[in-house]
Amino acid sequence: MTDKLQEETRERRKATIFVISGDFEKLFAAFSIAIGAAASNMDVKMFFTFWGLRALKKNVRTGESLFARMLGILEGGDINKANPGKYGFFGLGRWMFKKMIKNKKVAGLAELRRLAIELGVEMYSCDTTMEVMEIPKEKLIDEVADTVGVGWLIEQAQQSDFTYSF
Amino acid sequence: MTDKLQEETRERRKATIFVISGDFEKLFAAFSIAIGAAASNMDVKMFFTFWGLRALKKNVRTGESLFARMLGILEGGDINKANPGKYGFFGLGRWMFKKMIKNKKVAGLAELRRLAIELGVEMYSCDTTMEVMEIPKEKLIDEVADTVGVGWLIEQAQQSDFTYSF
Amino acid sequence: MTDKLQEETRERRKATIFVISGDFEKLFAAFSIAIGAAASNMDVKMFFTFWGLRALKKNVRTGESLFARMLGILEGGDINKANPGKYGFFGLGRWMFKKMIKNKKVAGLAELRRLAIELGVEMYSCDTTMEVMEIPKEKLIDEVADTVGVGWLIEQAQQSDFTYSF
Repeated sequence: MTDKLQEETRERRKATIFVISGDFEKLFAAFSIAIGAAASNMDVKMFFTFWGLRALKKNVRTGESLFARMLGILEGGDINKANPGKYGFFGLGRWMFKKMIKNKKVAGLAELRRLAIELGVEMYSCDTTMEVMEIPKEKLIDEVADTVGVGWLIEQAQQSDFTYSF
Repeated sequence: MTDKLQEETRERRKATIFVISGDFEKLFAAFSIAIGAAASNMDVKMFFTFWGLRALKKNVRTGESLFARMLGILEGGDINKANPGKYGFFGLGRWMFKKMIKNKKVAGLAELRRLAIELGVEMYSCDTTMEVMEIPKEKLIDEVADTVGVGWLIEQAQQSDFTYSF
Repeated sequence: MTDKLQEETRERRKATIFVISGDFEKLFAAFSIAIGAAASNMDVKMFFTFWGLRALKKNVRTGESLFARMLGILEGGDINKANPGKYGFFGLGRWMFKKMIKNKKVAGLAELRRLAIELGVEMYSCDTTMEVMEIPKEKLIDEVADTVGVGWLIEQAQQSDFTYSF
Protein backbone atom coordinates (compact mmCIF):
# COMPACT_ATOMS: atom_id res chain seq x y z
CA MET A 1 0.00 0.00 0.00
CA THR A 2 1.37 3.42 -0.90
CA ASP A 3 2.00 6.09 1.72
CA LYS A 4 -0.76 8.23 0.24
CA LEU A 5 -3.32 5.45 0.57
CA GLN A 6 -2.20 4.74 4.12
CA GLU A 7 -2.65 8.40 4.91
CA GLU A 8 -6.17 8.34 3.50
CA THR A 9 -7.25 5.17 5.26
CA ARG A 10 -5.84 6.10 8.65
CA GLU A 11 -8.58 7.58 10.81
CA ARG A 12 -8.34 11.33 11.40
CA ARG A 13 -8.22 12.67 14.94
CA LYS A 14 -11.42 14.35 16.08
CA ALA A 15 -12.31 17.47 18.05
CA THR A 16 -15.72 18.67 19.24
CA ILE A 17 -16.33 22.29 20.16
CA PHE A 18 -19.43 23.15 22.17
CA VAL A 19 -20.57 26.78 21.97
CA ILE A 20 -23.21 27.95 24.45
CA SER A 21 -21.98 31.55 24.75
CA GLY A 22 -22.52 34.37 22.28
CA ASP A 23 -19.72 36.50 23.75
CA PHE A 24 -17.24 37.95 21.29
CA GLU A 25 -14.14 36.49 22.98
CA LYS A 26 -15.66 33.03 23.44
CA LEU A 27 -16.67 32.87 19.76
CA PHE A 28 -13.26 34.16 18.76
CA ALA A 29 -11.58 31.39 20.78
CA ALA A 30 -13.99 28.69 19.56
CA PHE A 31 -13.44 29.50 15.88
CA SER A 32 -9.67 29.93 16.36
CA ILE A 33 -9.36 26.49 17.95
CA ALA A 34 -11.60 24.98 15.25
CA ILE A 35 -9.41 26.50 12.52
CA GLY A 36 -6.20 25.42 14.23
CA ALA A 37 -7.46 21.86 14.63
CA ALA A 38 -8.73 21.65 11.05
CA ALA A 39 -5.42 23.05 9.80
CA SER A 40 -3.63 20.19 11.57
CA ASN A 41 -5.88 17.74 9.70
CA MET A 42 -8.34 17.00 12.50
CA ASP A 43 -12.01 16.28 11.86
CA VAL A 44 -13.71 19.20 13.66
CA LYS A 45 -17.37 19.56 14.57
CA MET A 46 -18.88 22.63 16.25
CA PHE A 47 -22.19 22.49 18.13
CA PHE A 48 -24.04 25.77 18.77
CA THR A 49 -26.68 26.10 21.46
CA PHE A 50 -28.47 28.85 23.38
CA TRP A 51 -26.66 32.24 23.07
CA GLY A 52 -24.16 30.58 20.75
CA LEU A 53 -26.81 29.99 18.11
CA ARG A 54 -26.69 33.62 16.92
CA ALA A 55 -23.26 32.84 15.49
CA LEU A 56 -25.07 30.69 12.88
CA LYS A 57 -28.02 33.02 12.30
CA LYS A 58 -28.66 35.08 9.19
CA ASN A 59 -29.25 38.78 9.81
CA VAL A 60 -33.04 38.33 10.07
CA ARG A 61 -35.83 38.63 12.64
CA THR A 62 -36.92 35.49 14.49
CA GLY A 63 -39.75 34.39 16.81
CA GLU A 64 -43.50 33.93 16.39
CA SER A 65 -44.90 33.96 19.94
CA LEU A 66 -44.58 37.05 22.16
CA PHE A 67 -41.56 35.91 24.22
CA ALA A 68 -39.70 34.45 21.26
CA ARG A 69 -40.21 37.69 19.35
CA MET A 70 -38.94 39.72 22.32
CA LEU A 71 -35.87 37.51 22.52
CA GLY A 72 -35.51 37.79 18.75
CA ILE A 73 -35.23 41.55 19.17
CA LEU A 74 -32.89 41.44 22.18
CA GLU A 75 -30.69 38.89 20.38
CA GLY A 76 -31.22 40.49 16.97
CA GLY A 77 -28.71 40.55 14.15
CA ASP A 78 -26.06 37.98 13.29
CA ILE A 79 -22.52 37.02 14.33
CA ASN A 80 -21.39 40.64 13.88
CA LYS A 81 -23.52 41.68 16.85
CA ALA A 82 -21.54 39.60 19.35
CA ASN A 83 -20.60 41.71 22.39
CA PRO A 84 -17.60 41.03 24.61
CA GLY A 85 -18.52 39.42 27.94
CA LYS A 86 -17.36 42.55 29.78
CA TYR A 87 -17.63 46.27 28.98
CA GLY A 88 -20.55 45.82 26.60
CA PHE A 89 -21.69 49.42 27.23
CA PHE A 90 -24.52 49.34 24.67
CA GLY A 91 -22.27 48.21 21.83
CA LEU A 92 -19.27 50.42 22.68
CA GLY A 93 -17.13 47.46 23.74
CA ARG A 94 -18.02 45.59 20.56
CA TRP A 95 -17.10 48.58 18.40
CA MET A 96 -13.83 49.05 20.32
CA PHE A 97 -12.73 45.42 20.00
CA LYS A 98 -13.56 45.34 16.31
CA LYS A 99 -11.39 48.44 15.79
CA MET A 100 -8.52 47.02 17.84
CA ILE A 101 -8.60 43.74 15.97
CA LYS A 102 -8.77 45.47 12.59
CA ASN A 103 -5.87 47.76 13.48
CA LYS A 104 -3.73 44.70 14.14
CA LYS A 105 -4.95 43.01 10.94
CA VAL A 106 -6.45 40.15 12.96
CA ALA A 107 -9.51 38.45 11.41
CA GLY A 108 -13.01 39.29 12.69
CA LEU A 109 -15.67 36.74 13.68
CA ALA A 110 -17.45 36.54 10.30
CA GLU A 111 -14.10 35.99 8.59
CA LEU A 112 -13.06 33.33 11.11
CA ARG A 113 -16.34 31.48 10.58
CA ARG A 114 -15.90 31.59 6.79
CA LEU A 115 -12.32 30.31 7.11
CA ALA A 116 -13.43 27.49 9.42
CA ILE A 117 -16.07 26.38 6.91
CA GLU A 118 -13.54 26.52 4.05
CA LEU A 119 -11.23 24.27 6.05
CA GLY A 120 -14.02 21.71 6.43
CA VAL A 121 -15.15 22.44 9.98
CA GLU A 122 -18.77 21.26 10.29
CA MET A 123 -21.36 23.43 12.04
CA TYR A 124 -24.33 21.91 13.88
CA SER A 125 -27.27 23.67 15.54
CA CYS A 126 -29.09 22.55 18.70
CA ASP A 127 -32.64 21.33 18.08
CA THR A 128 -34.00 22.24 21.55
CA THR A 129 -32.73 25.83 21.37
CA MET A 130 -34.21 26.25 17.89
CA GLU A 131 -37.57 24.99 19.11
CA VAL A 132 -37.68 27.04 22.32
CA MET A 133 -36.39 30.25 20.71
CA GLU A 134 -38.44 29.63 17.54
CA ILE A 135 -35.53 29.90 15.15
CA PRO A 136 -36.25 27.66 12.13
CA LYS A 137 -33.48 26.13 9.99
CA GLU A 138 -34.07 28.58 7.13
CA LYS A 139 -33.07 31.49 9.40
CA LEU A 140 -29.62 29.93 9.86
CA ILE A 141 -26.80 30.22 7.34
CA ASP A 142 -26.91 27.65 4.55
CA GLU A 143 -23.59 26.12 5.60
CA VAL A 144 -25.11 24.53 8.73
CA ALA A 145 -24.58 20.78 8.27
CA ASP A 146 -27.48 19.57 10.40
CA THR A 147 -29.76 20.23 13.34
CA VAL A 148 -29.00 17.77 16.12
CA GLY A 149 -29.71 16.87 19.72
CA VAL A 150 -27.82 15.80 22.81
CA GLY A 151 -27.53 12.16 21.68
CA TRP A 152 -25.47 13.27 18.71
CA LEU A 153 -23.29 15.39 20.98
CA ILE A 154 -22.53 12.48 23.35
CA GLU A 155 -21.53 10.29 20.42
CA GLN A 156 -19.14 12.96 19.08
CA ALA A 157 -17.65 13.68 22.50
CA GLN A 158 -16.95 9.96 23.04
CA GLN A 159 -15.04 9.77 19.75
CA SER A 160 -13.14 13.03 20.19
CA ASP A 161 -9.49 13.43 21.10
CA PHE A 162 -10.50 16.59 22.88
CA THR A 163 -13.57 18.70 23.49
CA TYR A 164 -13.76 22.39 24.29
CA SER A 165 -16.79 24.23 25.57
CA PHE A 166 -17.28 27.97 25.41
CA MET B 1 -19.25 -16.38 28.34
CA THR B 2 -22.66 -15.11 27.32
CA ASP B 3 -23.15 -11.76 25.63
CA LYS B 4 -24.99 -10.48 28.68
CA LEU B 5 -22.11 -11.35 31.00
CA GLN B 6 -19.61 -9.79 28.60
CA GLU B 7 -21.73 -6.66 28.60
CA GLU B 8 -21.75 -6.57 32.38
CA THR B 9 -18.04 -7.18 32.83
CA ARG B 10 -16.92 -4.71 30.18
CA GLU B 11 -16.06 -1.40 31.80
CA ARG B 12 -18.54 1.40 31.23
CA ARG B 13 -17.38 4.61 29.59
CA LYS B 14 -17.13 7.57 31.91
CA ALA B 15 -18.00 11.26 31.74
CA THR B 16 -17.31 14.03 34.25
CA ILE B 17 -19.28 17.27 34.22
CA PHE B 18 -17.91 20.24 36.13
CA VAL B 19 -20.45 22.93 37.05
CA ILE B 20 -19.13 26.26 38.33
CA SER B 21 -21.92 28.42 36.90
CA GLY B 22 -25.42 28.87 38.28
CA ASP B 23 -26.77 30.28 35.01
CA PHE B 24 -29.98 28.78 33.72
CA GLU B 25 -28.62 27.83 30.28
CA LYS B 26 -25.39 26.36 31.65
CA LEU B 27 -27.30 24.16 34.13
CA PHE B 28 -29.73 23.19 31.39
CA ALA B 29 -26.82 22.10 29.17
CA ALA B 30 -24.98 20.33 32.01
CA PHE B 31 -28.01 18.24 33.02
CA SER B 32 -28.96 17.54 29.39
CA ILE B 33 -25.49 16.20 28.62
CA ALA B 34 -25.51 14.18 31.86
CA ILE B 35 -28.86 12.64 30.95
CA GLY B 36 -27.80 11.93 27.38
CA ALA B 37 -24.59 10.27 28.53
CA ALA B 38 -26.35 8.19 31.21
CA ALA B 39 -28.98 7.15 28.66
CA SER B 40 -26.20 5.80 26.44
CA ASN B 41 -25.00 3.71 29.41
CA MET B 42 -22.09 5.91 30.49
CA ASP B 43 -21.05 6.28 34.13
CA VAL B 44 -21.68 10.01 34.74
CA LYS B 45 -20.46 12.13 37.65
CA MET B 46 -21.33 15.80 38.14
CA PHE B 47 -19.26 18.09 40.37
CA PHE B 48 -20.84 21.34 41.60
CA THR B 49 -18.76 24.25 42.83
CA PHE B 50 -19.18 27.98 43.50
CA TRP B 51 -22.33 29.40 41.80
CA GLY B 52 -23.14 25.91 40.61
CA LEU B 53 -23.70 24.68 44.15
CA ARG B 54 -27.16 26.28 44.35
CA ALA B 55 -28.31 23.61 41.89
CA LEU B 56 -27.91 21.09 44.74
CA LYS B 57 -29.26 23.28 47.53
CA LYS B 58 -32.59 22.82 49.30
CA ASN B 59 -34.79 25.91 49.38
CA VAL B 60 -33.37 27.09 52.73
CA ARG B 61 -31.32 29.95 54.17
CA THR B 62 -27.55 29.45 54.53
CA GLY B 63 -24.61 31.23 56.16
CA GLU B 64 -23.60 31.94 59.77
CA SER B 65 -21.09 34.79 59.55
CA LEU B 66 -22.08 38.21 58.16
CA PHE B 67 -20.70 37.78 54.63
CA ALA B 68 -21.90 34.20 54.26
CA ARG B 69 -25.37 35.26 55.36
CA MET B 70 -25.36 38.15 52.86
CA LEU B 71 -24.34 35.74 50.10
CA GLY B 72 -26.97 33.31 51.36
CA ILE B 73 -29.58 35.99 50.71
CA LEU B 74 -28.20 37.10 47.33
CA GLU B 75 -27.97 33.45 46.23
CA GLY B 76 -31.14 32.46 48.06
CA GLY B 77 -33.55 29.76 46.96
CA ASP B 78 -32.82 26.57 45.09
CA ILE B 79 -32.33 25.37 41.49
CA ASN B 80 -35.57 27.09 40.46
CA LYS B 81 -33.99 30.50 41.09
CA ALA B 82 -31.37 30.08 38.35
CA ASN B 83 -31.26 33.16 36.10
CA PRO B 84 -30.11 33.13 32.48
CA GLY B 85 -26.62 34.58 32.00
CA LYS B 86 -28.11 37.47 30.00
CA TYR B 87 -31.29 39.52 30.37
CA GLY B 88 -31.71 38.67 34.06
CA PHE B 89 -33.71 41.90 34.63
CA PHE B 90 -34.56 41.12 38.28
CA GLY B 91 -36.02 37.73 37.49
CA LEU B 92 -37.89 38.69 34.31
CA GLY B 93 -35.53 36.69 32.08
CA ARG B 94 -35.91 33.66 34.32
CA TRP B 95 -39.69 33.89 34.25
CA MET B 96 -39.66 34.35 30.46
CA PHE B 97 -37.45 31.34 29.79
CA LYS B 98 -39.48 29.14 32.12
CA LYS B 99 -42.63 30.08 30.20
CA MET B 100 -41.00 29.51 26.81
CA ILE B 101 -39.72 26.10 27.85
CA LYS B 102 -43.04 25.09 29.34
CA ASN B 103 -44.92 26.21 26.23
CA LYS B 104 -42.76 23.85 24.16
CA LYS B 105 -43.20 21.04 26.70
CA VAL B 106 -39.44 20.99 27.35
CA ALA B 107 -38.39 19.90 30.87
CA GLY B 108 -37.37 22.53 33.45
CA LEU B 109 -34.22 22.39 35.59
CA ALA B 110 -35.71 20.64 38.62
CA GLU B 111 -37.21 18.00 36.34
CA LEU B 112 -33.91 17.53 34.47
CA ARG B 113 -32.07 17.06 37.78
CA ARG B 114 -34.61 14.49 38.94
CA LEU B 115 -34.34 12.61 35.65
CA ALA B 116 -30.54 12.64 35.84
CA ILE B 117 -30.64 11.16 39.35
CA GLU B 118 -33.14 8.49 38.25
CA LEU B 119 -30.78 7.53 35.43
CA GLY B 120 -27.97 7.01 37.93
CA VAL B 121 -26.02 10.25 37.42
CA GLU B 122 -24.05 10.91 40.64
CA MET B 123 -23.93 14.41 42.12
CA TYR B 124 -20.94 15.65 44.13
CA SER B 125 -20.49 18.93 46.00
CA CYS B 126 -17.24 20.90 46.37
CA ASP B 127 -15.86 20.92 49.91
CA THR B 128 -14.05 24.27 49.64
CA THR B 129 -17.14 26.12 48.37
CA MET B 130 -19.24 24.61 51.15
CA GLU B 131 -16.73 25.74 53.75
CA VAL B 132 -16.23 29.27 52.38
CA MET B 133 -19.93 29.89 51.72
CA GLU B 134 -20.94 28.11 54.95
CA ILE B 135 -23.34 25.69 53.29
CA PRO B 136 -23.37 22.44 55.35
CA LYS B 137 -24.24 19.06 53.82
CA GLU B 138 -27.72 19.00 55.43
CA LYS B 139 -28.70 22.09 53.40
CA LEU B 140 -28.10 20.16 50.18
CA ILE B 141 -30.58 17.72 48.66
CA ASP B 142 -30.38 14.19 50.08
CA GLU B 143 -29.40 12.72 46.71
CA VAL B 144 -25.89 14.26 46.85
CA ALA B 145 -23.53 11.27 46.77
CA ASP B 146 -20.60 12.88 48.57
CA THR B 147 -18.69 16.05 49.36
CA VAL B 148 -15.32 15.96 47.63
CA GLY B 149 -12.24 18.00 46.80
CA VAL B 150 -9.98 18.67 43.84
CA GLY B 151 -8.07 15.39 44.26
CA TRP B 152 -11.23 13.45 43.59
CA LEU B 153 -11.93 15.62 40.54
CA ILE B 154 -8.50 14.98 39.00
CA GLU B 155 -8.94 11.22 39.45
CA GLN B 156 -12.33 11.30 37.71
CA ALA B 157 -11.11 13.52 34.89
CA GLN B 158 -8.19 11.14 34.22
CA GLN B 159 -10.55 8.19 33.88
CA SER B 160 -13.17 9.99 31.81
CA ASP B 161 -13.80 9.59 28.10
CA PHE B 162 -14.78 13.23 28.09
CA THR B 163 -15.22 16.11 30.51
CA TYR B 164 -17.42 19.17 30.14
CA SER B 165 -17.25 22.30 32.25
CA PHE B 166 -20.00 24.85 32.57
CA MET C 1 15.87 -1.57 35.81
CA THR C 2 15.22 -0.09 39.25
CA ASP C 3 11.80 1.16 40.29
CA LYS C 4 13.10 4.71 40.37
CA LEU C 5 14.34 4.51 36.78
CA GLN C 6 11.08 2.96 35.65
CA GLU C 7 9.24 5.83 37.29
CA GLU C 8 11.41 8.36 35.49
CA THR C 9 11.15 6.77 32.07
CA ARG C 10 7.40 6.21 32.17
CA GLU C 11 5.61 9.07 30.43
CA ARG C 12 3.70 11.42 32.71
CA ARG C 13 0.01 12.05 32.15
CA LYS C 14 -0.84 15.48 30.77
CA ALA C 15 -3.46 18.12 31.43
CA THR C 16 -4.13 21.39 29.60
CA ILE C 17 -6.07 24.21 31.23
CA PHE C 18 -7.43 26.98 29.02
CA VAL C 19 -8.22 30.26 30.79
CA ILE C 20 -10.23 32.87 28.87
CA SER C 21 -12.04 34.34 31.89
CA GLY C 22 -10.65 36.75 34.45
CA ASP C 23 -13.41 36.03 36.98
CA PHE C 24 -12.30 35.27 40.50
CA GLU C 25 -14.09 31.90 40.77
CA LYS C 26 -12.92 30.70 37.34
CA LEU C 27 -9.28 31.54 38.16
CA PHE C 28 -9.68 29.92 41.56
CA ALA C 29 -10.95 26.71 39.92
CA ALA C 30 -8.32 26.77 37.16
CA PHE C 31 -5.40 27.10 39.58
CA SER C 32 -6.90 24.56 42.01
CA ILE C 33 -7.24 21.95 39.26
CA ALA C 34 -3.72 22.76 38.02
CA ILE C 35 -2.31 22.30 41.52
CA GLY C 36 -4.28 19.09 42.10
CA ALA C 37 -3.11 17.63 38.79
CA ALA C 38 0.52 18.62 39.39
CA ALA C 39 0.35 17.17 42.90
CA SER C 40 -0.70 13.83 41.38
CA ASN C 41 2.40 13.97 39.16
CA MET C 42 0.74 15.15 35.94
CA ASP C 43 2.47 17.44 33.46
CA VAL C 44 0.24 20.55 33.56
CA LYS C 45 0.19 23.46 31.14
CA MET C 46 -2.03 26.54 31.52
CA PHE C 47 -2.87 28.82 28.57
CA PHE C 48 -4.12 32.33 29.32
CA THR C 49 -6.03 34.38 26.76
CA PHE C 50 -8.28 37.44 26.66
CA TRP C 51 -9.61 38.37 30.14
CA GLY C 52 -7.56 35.52 31.58
CA LEU C 53 -4.30 37.24 30.66
CA ARG C 54 -4.52 39.64 33.62
CA ALA C 55 -3.79 36.63 35.84
CA LEU C 56 -0.25 36.69 34.40
CA LYS C 57 0.20 40.47 34.36
CA LYS C 58 2.45 42.49 36.63
CA ASN C 59 0.75 45.37 38.43
CA VAL C 60 1.62 47.87 35.68
CA ARG C 61 -0.11 50.02 33.05
CA THR C 62 -0.44 48.62 29.53
CA GLY C 63 -1.47 49.86 26.07
CA GLU C 64 -0.01 52.37 23.60
CA SER C 65 -2.89 53.24 21.26
CA LEU C 66 -6.04 54.97 22.57
CA PHE C 67 -8.25 51.86 22.81
CA ALA C 68 -5.53 49.65 24.25
CA ARG C 69 -4.78 52.30 26.89
CA MET C 70 -8.49 52.56 27.77
CA LEU C 71 -8.66 48.78 28.12
CA GLY C 72 -5.42 48.89 30.11
CA ILE C 73 -7.18 51.16 32.61
CA LEU C 74 -10.44 49.17 32.71
CA GLU C 75 -8.47 45.95 33.16
CA GLY C 76 -5.81 47.59 35.31
CA GLY C 77 -3.91 45.91 38.11
CA ASP C 78 -2.88 42.28 38.42
CA ILE C 79 -4.36 38.94 39.54
CA ASN C 80 -5.48 40.54 42.83
CA LYS C 81 -8.01 42.68 40.93
CA ALA C 82 -10.05 39.68 39.74
CA ASN C 83 -13.76 40.22 40.43
CA PRO C 84 -16.28 37.41 40.91
CA GLY C 85 -18.51 36.85 37.86
CA LYS C 86 -21.54 37.97 39.91
CA TYR C 87 -22.05 40.68 42.53
CA GLY C 88 -19.02 42.70 41.42
CA PHE C 89 -20.58 45.91 42.83
CA PHE C 90 -17.52 48.11 42.07
CA GLY C 91 -15.12 45.82 43.91
CA LEU C 92 -17.37 45.02 46.88
CA GLY C 93 -17.85 41.39 45.81
CA ARG C 94 -14.11 40.98 45.37
CA TRP C 95 -13.40 42.40 48.82
CA MET C 96 -16.11 40.17 50.34
CA PHE C 97 -14.83 36.96 48.79
CA LYS C 98 -11.25 37.72 49.78
CA LYS C 99 -12.38 38.19 53.37
CA MET C 100 -14.45 35.01 53.36
CA ILE C 101 -11.60 32.98 51.93
CA LYS C 102 -9.10 34.43 54.39
CA ASN C 103 -11.40 33.77 57.34
CA LYS C 104 -11.46 30.09 56.37
CA LYS C 105 -7.68 30.05 55.86
CA VAL C 106 -8.16 29.15 52.18
CA ALA C 107 -5.41 30.38 49.81
CA GLY C 108 -6.01 33.47 47.65
CA LEU C 109 -5.37 33.71 43.90
CA ALA C 110 -1.80 35.06 44.07
CA GLU C 111 -0.89 32.30 46.53
CA LEU C 112 -2.51 29.61 44.34
CA ARG C 113 -0.56 30.86 41.32
CA ARG C 114 2.70 30.79 43.26
CA LEU C 115 1.98 27.27 44.52
CA ALA C 116 1.14 26.08 40.99
CA ILE C 117 4.45 27.45 39.69
CA GLU C 118 6.36 25.82 42.54
CA LEU C 119 4.76 22.49 41.66
CA GLY C 120 5.99 22.86 38.08
CA VAL C 121 2.79 23.98 36.35
CA GLU C 122 3.83 25.86 33.19
CA MET C 123 2.12 29.14 32.28
CA TYR C 124 1.70 30.25 28.66
CA SER C 125 0.32 33.52 27.28
CA CYS C 126 -1.71 33.95 24.07
CA ASP C 127 0.15 35.82 21.33
CA THR C 128 -2.97 37.25 19.63
CA THR C 129 -4.36 38.72 22.86
CA MET C 130 -0.99 40.27 23.68
CA GLU C 131 -0.82 41.88 20.24
CA VAL C 132 -4.42 43.16 20.17
CA MET C 133 -4.39 44.41 23.78
CA GLU C 134 -0.80 45.71 23.44
CA ILE C 135 0.56 43.83 26.43
CA PRO C 136 4.25 43.03 25.77
CA LYS C 137 6.03 40.07 27.37
CA GLU C 138 7.91 42.29 29.86
CA LYS C 139 4.61 43.36 31.43
CA LEU C 140 3.88 39.73 32.34
CA ILE C 141 5.37 37.96 35.36
CA ASP C 142 8.82 36.47 34.76
CA GLU C 143 7.57 32.92 35.37
CA VAL C 144 5.65 32.84 32.06
CA ALA C 145 7.23 29.96 30.13
CA ASP C 146 6.45 31.20 26.62
CA THR C 147 4.12 33.19 24.39
CA VAL C 148 2.28 30.83 22.07
CA GLY C 149 -0.52 30.56 19.51
CA VAL C 150 -3.40 28.28 18.68
CA GLY C 151 -1.18 25.71 16.94
CA TRP C 152 0.62 25.07 20.20
CA LEU C 153 -2.71 24.74 22.01
CA ILE C 154 -4.03 22.10 19.57
CA GLU C 155 -0.87 20.05 19.99
CA GLN C 156 -1.17 20.14 23.79
CA ALA C 157 -4.88 19.31 23.74
CA GLN C 158 -4.24 16.29 21.51
CA GLN C 159 -1.68 14.91 23.94
CA SER C 160 -3.68 15.65 27.09
CA ASP C 161 -5.53 13.15 29.26
CA PHE C 162 -7.99 15.93 29.95
CA THR C 163 -8.52 19.58 29.16
CA TYR C 164 -10.47 22.15 31.15
CA SER C 165 -11.54 25.56 29.95
CA PHE C 166 -12.56 28.42 32.16
